[in-house]
Amino acid sequence: MQPLTFDHTSFLANGERIFLISGEVHYFRVPRAGWGDRLRKMQDAGGNCVATYVPWLLHEPEEGRFDFDGAQLELEAFLDLCNEVGLWALVRPGPYQYSELAYDGLPGWLCEGYPTLRAQNLAGKDFRVSSISYLHPDFLAKARRWFHEVAPRIARHLTSHGGAVAAVQVDNELMGIHEWFGSLDYHPAAMGVGREMGRWPAFLQTRYGSLDAVNAAYGLRAKTWAAVRPLDAVTAGTPEERRRVQDYAECYRGSVAHYARILADWLREGGVDVPIVHNSPNPTSNADFRELVERMGPDFLLGSDHYYALDMDWDGNNPTPKYAAKCFYSLEELRHFGVPPTVFEMPGGSLSDFPPVTAHDAECAYLLNVAYGLKGYNYYIFAGGYNVPGTGTTSEVYDYGAAVSPDGELRPLYGAQQRLGQFLADHRWLAGAGCAADCRIGLLWEYSRAGKHGADHKGGIDFSAADAWGLFWKGLLMTAFSAGLTPELADLASDDVLARLDLPLVVPTAHTMSRAVQEGLVDFVRAGGQLLLAPVVPALDEAYRPCTVLADFLGAPVQEAYRCMAPLLTAFDVRNVFVNGGLFATTARPEDAVPVAVEERGNREIGWRRAYPGGGCATILGLHWKHAKHEHATMLANALTDLGLQRRVQCSNPLIWTALRSDGQRTMLFLLNLFTAPLTTRVSFRDTTGTWIDTGEHTLPGISVTAWTDGRVVYNTADGAKIGGRG
Amino acid sequence: MQPLTFDHTSFLANGERIFLISGEVHYFRVPRAGWGDRLRKMQDAGGNCVATYVPWLLHEPEEGRFDFDGAQLELEAFLDLCNEVGLWALVRPGPYQYSELAYDGLPGWLCEGYPTLRAQNLAGKDFRVSSISYLHPDFLAKARRWFHEVAPRIARHLTSHGGAVAAVQVDNELMGIHEWFGSLDYHPAAMGVGREMGRWPAFLQTRYGSLDAVNAAYGLRAKTWAAVRPLDAVTAGTPEERRRVQDYAECYRGSVAHYARILADWLREGGVDVPIVHNSPNPTSNADFRELVERMGPDFLLGSDHYYALDMDWDGNNPTPKYAAKCFYSLEELRHFGVPPTVFEMPGGSLSDFPPVTAHDAECAYLLNVAYGLKGYNYYIFAGGYNVPGTGTTSEVYDYGAAVSPDGELRPLYGAQQRLGQFLADHRWLAGAGCAADCRIGLLWEYSRAGKHGADHKGGIDFSAADAWGLFWKGLLMTAFSAGLTPELADLASDDVLARLDLPLVVPTAHTMSRAVQEGLVDFVRAGGQLLLAPVVPALDEAYRPCTVLADFLGAPVQEAYRCMAPLLTAFDVRNVFVNGGLFATTARPEDAVPVAVEERGNREIGWRRAYPGGGCATILGLHWKHAKHEHATMLANALTDLGLQRRVQCSNPLIWTALRSDGQRTMLFLLNLFTAPLTTRVSFRDTTGTWIDTGEHTLPGISVTAWTDGRVVYNTADGAKIGGRG
Repeated sequence: MQPLTFDHTSFLANGERIFLISGEVHYFRVPRAGWGDRLRKMQDAGGNCVATYVPWLLHEPEEGRFDFDGAQLELEAFLDLCNEVGLWALVRPGPYQYSELAYDGLPGWLCEGYPTLRAQNLAGKDFRVSSISYLHPDFLAKARRWFHEVAPRIARHLTSHGGAVAAVQVDNELMGIHEWFGSLDYHPAAMGVGREMGRWPAFLQTRYGSLDAVNAAYGLRAKTWAAVRPLDAVTAGTPEERRRVQDYAECYRGSVAHYARILADWLREGGVDVPIVHNSPNPTSNADFRELVERMGPDFLLGSDHYYALDMDWDGNNPTPKYAAKCFYSLEELRHFGVPPTVFEMPGGSLSDFPPVTAHDAECAYLLNVAYGLKGYNYYIFAGGYNVPGTGTTSEVYDYGAAVSPDGELRPLYGAQQRLGQFLADHRWLAGAGCAADCRIGLLWEYSRAGKHGADHKGGIDFSAADAWGLFWKGLLMTAFSAGLTPELADLASDDVLARLDLPLVVPTAHTMSRAVQEGLVDFVRAGGQLLLAPVVPALDEAYRPCTVLADFLGAPVQEAYRCMAPLLTAFDVRNVFVNGGLFATTARPEDAVPVAVEERGNREIGWRRAYPGGGCATILGLHWKHAKHEHATMLANALTDLGLQRRVQCSNPLIWTALRSDGQRTMLFLLNLFTAPLTTRVSFRDTTGTWIDTGEHTLPGISVTAWTDGRVVYNTADGAKIGGRG
Repeated sequence: MQPLTFDHTSFLANGERIFLISGEVHYFRVPRAGWGDRLRKMQDAGGNCVATYVPWLLHEPEEGRFDFDGAQLELEAFLDLCNEVGLWALVRPGPYQYSELAYDGLPGWLCEGYPTLRAQNLAGKDFRVSSISYLHPDFLAKARRWFHEVAPRIARHLTSHGGAVAAVQVDNELMGIHEWFGSLDYHPAAMGVGREMGRWPAFLQTRYGSLDAVNAAYGLRAKTWAAVRPLDAVTAGTPEERRRVQDYAECYRGSVAHYARILADWLREGGVDVPIVHNSPNPTSNADFRELVERMGPDFLLGSDHYYALDMDWDGNNPTPKYAAKCFYSLEELRHFGVPPTVFEMPGGSLSDFPPVTAHDAECAYLLNVAYGLKGYNYYIFAGGYNVPGTGTTSEVYDYGAAVSPDGELRPLYGAQQRLGQFLADHRWLAGAGCAADCRIGLLWEYSRAGKHGADHKGGIDFSAADAWGLFWKGLLMTAFSAGLTPELADLASDDVLARLDLPLVVPTAHTMSRAVQEGLVDFVRAGGQLLLAPVVPALDEAYRPCTVLADFLGAPVQEAYRCMAPLLTAFDVRNVFVNGGLFATTARPEDAVPVAVEERGNREIGWRRAYPGGGCATILGLHWKHAKHEHATMLANALTDLGLQRRVQCSNPLIWTALRSDGQRTMLFLLNLFTAPLTTRVSFRDTTGTWIDTGEHTLPGISVTAWTDGRVVYNTADGAKIGGRG
């Protein structure tokens, strides 16, 4: 097979922009006689790739004894067959697999026989038998032996040698095995917690230089490095305590990056020269992989996993607006890692029959990902199979409700995947298309991470980074979509902030914001950019040190938290804006600034706008909200209109979300009805020439995505599933 | 108007069984000129009642000054008009209202001016400005003055005096104002916490007799009553600690019951002779009202509120199977309180536009409640309005997306309500119908409460009451529906357990079970009943004292928690039963018992069945599960078939849930598709003569309920909403 490459826009083969369309087919589960059939079925669905785990559990059944020849273990024969059929292979040799395998895919002898390798919480307690401390030297020694066996076997089948293997994944959903079953890992041997030497004391030495400086930063009086204990996030209140929480989280993420780098080096040593990849467990986790992405360097691609329901306790049984918003920011985050946004686990069934992953819902989920910039994906799973006896945690049969049954029968889900494949084949240009944005929303990696690992302190004027992350996606993002805007994310930690001075930029703020980001925003306004901040002007940097670079530039505004029992907020000429988060009132407005919002009961100013030399403008809105009312949408649209917004879309129904993708010549409009009732809307959009195109009135079935281009609807995900089955 | 009465089956008017069909119309919000119009619209939708809050906030604007004459305050004129139009009135004078009113409907002067009245957590901190301690004597004095003013005004309009007022509600969603914003209330003055005298020490004295006995029960060495502090549930581990947690919760619930009784007495003193009612905040809370229901005595009706989504953070945007299961157990719990199951707040819009409460979804929610036994309901709200300035927490306009807009315009939701009204009018016999059950599931009030207030300890063999509650509804109930069974709940705390010896009884168990319930189950089997227990045989009573009444009768079985990495469970001839909760293996099976389930990897018995003298039979299945796979459903059906199950329904699609209601002559079949894809199924049922009726094949739209009787579909909730609008 030709090599698979990628740039910042898309995957490429023979110089052509393509979608990577993959499906998970497990050689160790699909009956060997069915391999060829499953591969051809994937190809017939428009696929160009298959993915498979390579379970350590199965291939090293006893310590030191490897088996690649036993029944269902002939990895290389499978890779040969991929090549024969003409599909790339994405190979995922772990160490971790999950995949409903015993011990999450690690050998049982390792998990049961070496309990000291298990990750530990702050109290020194382990999580579960298969939660291992990644950097424990004894674990690494055993993992290295595994990679030493498996890497050369993979390497024989690389595209560079005319084989099928186009990419290799290291580990699986890193960090999950710790966080889901316990916490971050605080293992003394691996992390150096409670020791004079090791990762954590080394991290502290690098960051602070001396124990005195650490004590000053943390408000401690430790006499040894070992005495500087990490702190649990829930108990952190003071800036010193929060700093300690954040530092350890950063140290932990660094350790994960180091582990991934070690695995990648072993692959390279074993001859693997194709791209190395990894999958973030879910959209919420992507930002945790910044250290990892940096450490892995070029020719590495981070993707994410985008499930919407794996059992009844998930957030919804089907794609919802919240799922869509998460997919959007996930894909945008991946784009900002400089790679084509890829979903390595796209729902292709579920381990549960109830709630079901229906073809109807899944097809909607697929196309909404495309609408938001997806460039590559892998159905998890594509074809069911049978577990090697004693190795499956759910059942002997690994059915998963996949598109293809364990015996090769096609399910309705296959139709959905085939229709999507056909759509992407019919509109190949989408591989090179980008978002036709009319505004930008600032992406603050540190806020995203704070929502997971940071100290989430509340009260008083304090608006934490975790709060800001909530405002980012439940407020700004969901409001922007409901306002018919077509936002893209701007990476505020990079030069990207200056890339589009023509689009208004909205930034969710906390009382903390790194100096670099503050400076970037100052540069943006200085260069003529139009900025909307909500709800507070930062006063500290990300480590809780005073930092008023942005405030000083804006004109030293002062705010205070303001409580009002029955608020009547008018903002940007919208009366009755629902205050469901909180208000920050202006106590000192910069000179020349004009008020933009007022709470009428108490007659308090809730925000202002000010012009700056060079044509730039900044607006601050002291409102924390979660999208709930149409007034929120009108308010945001008005605020951006004041900042020069040139809308790309007019949509008459605020419950319908839209997305526009364009390659500069062609434009595709996507209409998302992520509610369960049919909804009607009228939609127009501006094409690349600036002309408004009226697409007419649409009645959109519940849970559906519709694609419109060139005068007509070219795809509606609900059409294929009109004849219902068991789902 | 004629009086509205009720018995254990339904509401009654002039001796006829009727549905109570009400809508919330706020005289203090709907423009006065529109009152008549709104009332007639409610009547035109099939309604026979309207409900309204009577806000203390508005009627006592300054302490001691009452106003029933100001604009939008003419309560009596409104009640006169109800009478004129011919609608009953359900009046809800608080003290609490919520209703998106400032201070949750309490006067601001009270909340702001008397901070010592606020409820307190264990640390003595208050929750929010309007969270008052119900039994604080100073609060009661002020509330009494309010009732003294309002009760006679209501009393003039009672049905007994030819007026419209058919029922009066005390307070609103009791306990919520504490729990949602803090915890239970531990106020020293109201609860006696930390005092020698007061409710908590009195509770302890009554329960244990002496301080020594308390110390023995709690493992304390307290020297004074004041020193016996309540304990937070999350810190409770030992039986002594859990006992303390449970006791305080019971003491708290008793205080709430006492408060409600005081309010009711004030109403009675004021001349109110119609039924008094209250609304549990949601299905999860119903069981917390057992003390209250008992204390209120006859002529009191507890209902529940059944919202499915009020903002984006709810469990789903639309009715889901989990919502349906909650509605089912809520309505069954209410039935076991001896009253017609009533939903006092049925979604009639939402305070949020996003997610929307669409007519499509709401109509489905309404009919699923009817399918599960609803006999009375009140749309919250029916007609929008405008807040008295400064009293609304969401906005000036109280639109709520109601069926009727603030200006009287009809929305699509009105059509849904009208269609439901017509359906209930066409099938009046449903008011007297009951569930046509083919099996029973045991309702354990103490388990439901443990899920909220109890100590939820995990580890080892210990299977807590909270765990059992999870198994009850996420396991047994959802599995039973998915198996096509038509269960009803049996109240195990009453004689009800013996009422149906002809139906198999399934009981979720914990290691704790009260002696009375254990004895009831023994009596059930002795009398020839067929019993299935899962997953453990209780060893303790509800206060963690040894109690093996049931175990002794069953034959002294012994179990142990059993972990298996890749379990292969065969239960009741079903192979590959997914173990997603845990296993309990039998280590000593009673003599003559036969195994029913085995984990094949470890060759461990997971349950057994045994016959008892008199024809009774008991089965224990040592499996804790959450419904996820079709095998779960087949397993449960097989287990019950072994116990003599006579199915009422055959449904070919396990994703479609069914319900059967019958008055002994007629039968109505309901088909629920609570997923978003259209689904197809074939359904037969046994009518009252025992004849199987084949209803044919149905393609059921996503999120819809279909009613079938007498040879045809008589109602499909998705039909009316086929023409989509804004929702």
